[in-house]
Amino acid sequence: MTEAYVHGYHAKENERLRDQAGALVDLLHSDTHYPAGSRVLEVGCGVGAQTITLAQRSPEARFTSIDISEASLAQAAERLTRAGCTNVAFQRADIFALPFGAAAFDHVFVCFVLEHLARPVQALALLHRQLRPGGTITVIEGDHGSTYFHPDSAAAHAAIQCQVALQRTAGGNALIGRQVYPLLVAAGFSAVRVSPRMVYVDSSRPHLVDGFTRKTFTAMIEGVRAPAIAAGLIEAERFDAGIRDLYRTAEADGVFCYTFFKGVGEATVSS
Amino acid sequence: MTEAYVHGYHAKENERLRDQAGALVDLLHSDTHYPAGSRVLEVGCGVGAQTITLAQRSPEARFTSIDISEASLAQAAERLTRAGCTNVAFQRADIFALPFGAAAFDHVFVCFVLEHLARPVQALALLHRQLRPGGTITVIEGDHGSTYFHPDSAAAHAAIQCQVALQRTAGGNALIGRQVYPLLVAAGFSAVRVSPRMVYVDSSRPHLVDGFTRKTFTAMIEGVRAPAIAAGLIEAERFDAGIRDLYRTAEADGVFCYTFFKGVGEATVSS
Repeated sequence: MTEAYVHGYHAKENERLRDQAGALVDLLHSDTHYPAGSRVLEVGCGVGAQTITLAQRSPEARFTSIDISEASLAQAAERLTRAGCTNVAFQRADIFALPFGAAAFDHVFVCFVLEHLARPVQALALLHRQLRPGGTITVIEGDHGSTYFHPDSAAAHAAIQCQVALQRTAGGNALIGRQVYPLLVAAGFSAVRVSPRMVYVDSSRPHLVDGFTRKTFTAMIEGVRAPAIAAGLIEAERFDAGIRDLYRTAEADGVFCYTFFKGVGEATVSS
Repeated sequence: MTEAYVHGYHAKENERLRDQAGALVDLLHSDTHYPAGSRVLEVGCGVGAQTITLAQRSPEARFTSIDISEASLAQAAERLTRAGCTNVAFQRADIFALPFGAAAFDHVFVCFVLEHLARPVQALALLHRQLRPGGTITVIEGDHGSTYFHPDSAAAHAAIQCQVALQRTAGGNALIGRQVYPLLVAAGFSAVRVSPRMVYVDSSRPHLVDGFTRKTFTAMIEGVRAPAIAAGLIEAERFDAGIRDLYRTAEADGVFCYTFFKGVGEATVSS
């Protein structure tokens, strides 16, 4: 997966991922708490953007946070150490070849990972095996098809579509958020409940205008300029017009909408 | 506006509007309460789908509910009488030629009306004049551009686009929900706050599968089949495929998303 990771591994990209985590923490994570002593597997922790929130909100739970990238794990570990968190063990592991025994965990947490996988149901089914009966999985994914804004702009939609196409080429799915419910059901989880987390931004919410519209979403789309043009998906001028129009939605009369989906399911039997 | 009203005035359409109101009452209206004795103007009450909710939730407020259609007003009045509501006065009036004096009301309520107007800011500015300083306006609008679903379908999006095009031809805007904030600001309201009300439907929410995906949204799009084909916007086969695909999203593994926008603003001065 390393080569294909559409968001890249550069310093600027890591900064974007941190901004995103900062602006969205409450929206996405405020209802996630794990009991004292519970064993939680975080899958695809990356540079620890979500890990620090999880660990601080459930200080008595014991986290095992895995990622495929050693470099990301090193950054995540350093970050958690700086924050004084001692309840997280980091480990390099592949989601499709997990080194843990069946039912080794009480809870599994998967955030912004399935969007990069060609076989998300298979991944979820493997994670199901990691859970004790009655354990839970929490899945959070975005959906670029949930993006709309004012003023509307065909060029902006075309630029966003480049990201969707590149992610598809890499085997992923940038429109996966809406599928969290059927994916969890298909993987055998029960009592599945999905709740959308919509980010609505207008100029009465300046922290979101800056933290989400500009520095999270538009910066992410801007980040695929070179590969999108190189792949012949779009002309440079049209891409740049799309980015300008996305920044335009961050002005005083602009509006920007995006939705994340959070799903929770229960493991019924240790399959 | 009568001839141009895109939803039509037929019995089946009125049934759809009632189903819609039933399924969405809590989502859209649970936070709307008016104090005892306050004078509330409801603009574009239609057949009373929202009126009955407003009147029952604020039984001590006095409502004046206006519409351009005598036939709709008659149905609304009959409906309110049947429900035993006595705090609503119905009156035929044009939003652009209101028969009330300046500052005649404490609150104004406008639901699913701006989408049909070619000059929504002008309408809101006229309504602003109806309010006492410190009075509030509440605006609720949908946005067909907020529609996405699983399985995705280009034909379904094309069918929806017919409704958007027909509404545009009639002088309206089916994508107006996202503009509630800038429209209220442009009309001179202050302290404007907009909150999206997303309808998320999967098969764990069967009342919404039936009440919203099937009987509200898909039925509405189905209702423009004849005018869309007559206007040359789409081939009959493609439209029908789109409708089939919309119904497909109501099956066990389907997901359907739509968002309404509710905005509240304050009248600062009696302009």
